[in-house]
Amino acid sequence: MPYFTVSATDGKARLGELSTPHGPVQTPVFMPVGTAASVKGVTPDHLQATGSQMVLANTYHLLVRPGAKVVANLGGVHGMMSWPGAMLTDSGGYQVFSLAHLRKLDEDGVVFQSHVDGSQLELTPESAVEAQSLLGADVMMQLDECAPGDATHAQAAKAVERSSAWAARCRDKWNSLGRVSAQNKPQALFGIQQGGVYDDLRARSAAELVKLDLPGYAVGGLSVGEGHEAMCRVLDHTDDQFPADRPRYLMGVGEPRDIIAAVMRGIDMFDCVMPTRNGRNAQAFTFKGRLRLRNACHGEDRSPLEEGCDCYACRNFSRGTIRHLFMSNEMLGPTLLSIHNLRFFARFMAAIRQAILDRSLSAMAEQWLSDMY
Amino acid sequence: MPYFTVSATDGKARLGELSTPHGPVQTPVFMPVGTAASVKGVTPDHLQATGSQMVLANTYHLLVRPGAKVVANLGGVHGMMSWPGAMLTDSGGYQVFSLAHLRKLDEDGVVFQSHVDGSQLELTPESAVEAQSLLGADVMMQLDECAPGDATHAQAAKAVERSSAWAARCRDKWNSLGRVSAQNKPQALFGIQQGGVYDDLRARSAAELVKLDLPGYAVGGLSVGEGHEAMCRVLDHTDDQFPADRPRYLMGVGEPRDIIAAVMRGIDMFDCVMPTRNGRNAQAFTFKGRLRLRNACHGEDRSPLEEGCDCYACRNFSRGTIRHLFMSNEMLGPTLLSIHNLRFFARFMAAIRQAILDRSLSAMAEQWLSDMY
Repeated sequence: MPYFTVSATDGKARLGELSTPHGPVQTPVFMPVGTAASVKGVTPDHLQATGSQMVLANTYHLLVRPGAKVVANLGGVHGMMSWPGAMLTDSGGYQVFSLAHLRKLDEDGVVFQSHVDGSQLELTPESAVEAQSLLGADVMMQLDECAPGDATHAQAAKAVERSSAWAARCRDKWNSLGRVSAQNKPQALFGIQQGGVYDDLRARSAAELVKLDLPGYAVGGLSVGEGHEAMCRVLDHTDDQFPADRPRYLMGVGEPRDIIAAVMRGIDMFDCVMPTRNGRNAQAFTFKGRLRLRNACHGEDRSPLEEGCDCYACRNFSRGTIRHLFMSNEMLGPTLLSIHNLRFFARFMAAIRQAILDRSLSAMAEQWLSDMY
Repeated sequence: MPYFTVSATDGKARLGELSTPHGPVQTPVFMPVGTAASVKGVTPDHLQATGSQMVLANTYHLLVRPGAKVVANLGGVHGMMSWPGAMLTDSGGYQVFSLAHLRKLDEDGVVFQSHVDGSQLELTPESAVEAQSLLGADVMMQLDECAPGDATHAQAAKAVERSSAWAARCRDKWNSLGRVSAQNKPQALFGIQQGGVYDDLRARSAAELVKLDLPGYAVGGLSVGEGHEAMCRVLDHTDDQFPADRPRYLMGVGEPRDIIAAVMRGIDMFDCVMPTRNGRNAQAFTFKGRLRLRNACHGEDRSPLEEGCDCYACRNFSRGTIRHLFMSNEMLGPTLLSIHNLRFFARFMAAIRQAILDRSLSAMAEQWLSDMY
């Protein structure tokens, strides 16, 4: 069984299927984020009911608490999350650079202080793979260095060089572990392209990764402040840079406008905290744009968040009730909006897949953008 | 169809059934508290799955936000909570005395300032019934005056006098509304006994309420600091003071030890925030006593909260994972312990009902107390 198959295309957009030990995943797919082994505010049965197929957990957060070995003892991230579906873990690198206090960064790896208890930890390409093997997700990511959105060419080049070298070391470690997790399930390793907004560096990064013949490739270092247009210019080359038979994952992207643009440039996988984070802040996504549920206009509104939405919140609660829950600081408010937003993203991705099948993605994209923004 | 039937007894303890427009309720019953139209941290499908039969909502909280008319517009508390089962609302009086800034208290009623926005509101026996008619619960409570746990005989006597007068006015208002809610469903009105720890006042209060021939009677003014022994001494007379064919509700009681003692003295209904409040504070109830899930000893424990418990948390999560969720401040931790504790109380009450049927309540009570404490 091939790891990834493409069954239809519409321009550069691809309808595909990823095979994982926890079932097939229809792409393009959006992955909700379960940072510390929980998609915030949502029980796993409700998460499953949203139609989410694959979730992401953050290696950094699980490394610093409770630790990769404890996670393995508790059944891996799948076991801890009570999640029967597909799962991906990042390498931890991104959060080391954004959350931890960095102590040392060199060719070997990175030494940092936990943002939780100040303890000193090390992450190398090898230890990142080892940790992810203990966590046991279906897809693990290489350790990479993510340059900031405003990185100079020289800074971005350095990040590419280091990331390419680390990718090779991750692959070697992954091979030495037999490409299986501590739970003895097959694990795929994805490489991560860097290069900032510089075409030559993106091309070089992709070429170096493709030589490693990995199961999938991610576009990293975007959605870090470069803006929508710059992101699109980078993605204009993605389809040419990576083999057609491997899934492509745009890390950290979430905004529906960005998802549409990326799918139309050949991206298959996405992840973002937006559905749950915005949900906790009383914002609901709909195909007609966003609602702010703290607004007084919703106070006596008996209609659901979105007509035609089949999510648990829309089937059981009115806008007025949800506003009341937020005004009263009831946990149920964030929970309901998180559920609704996760369902929105699942419905949105399903609509994208249908449009690819119908070869109507351009027209649909225009409609969605005009309705939503 | 009679409102309340008793099908078995064991000593003073009664196995009964309450008939409500939202289905029958097996007694003795424990009612989880959904203060502001939400049992904190729990979606209604999970609440139902705990086996909870009847929930309580707080009139005071819903009066100050979003207001009784808004609640009625949003489908009553049943509609807002998306709760298909039985429901009871208190009168608001207790919270007026404990939460609000009191402006005026006299024979007519009470004027107070909302603790939410400082607005001035009034609660009279008539307006308490009117508000509860808008909220639409199956059981409404009379407005009463609850004297503090250390009230003198004179203070407690004053509270009895006022509560009896208010009970009669509540009954008149309830009759004038046709004993139905704004949603046109039958509503029962319960009277509330006061009298502190003074036998003569308790007897007088009960006698004055029983004259009003109400569908049910509550024992109020307990669980306010008087202690277990004093509570038991008051309840020693309850069975004699109220007619056998009416349900008896001990307000605000929750502690399993107190529930056992009260059932053995003829009480049928209970309510308390304990399952959810303690759950949010990482405490799990079990038949072997309580667990504190933040304790390090649970860190790598793969066993469920309680062997043999069929709740959603125990079926899907280990103690180690739940500890991790609390240490990481994930909302799922409080949610899972709230679910487990609600299920514990439902299982505990079911075990009490079975013991009454088996006429083994004394022996079982001894066992439970020795295992739990």
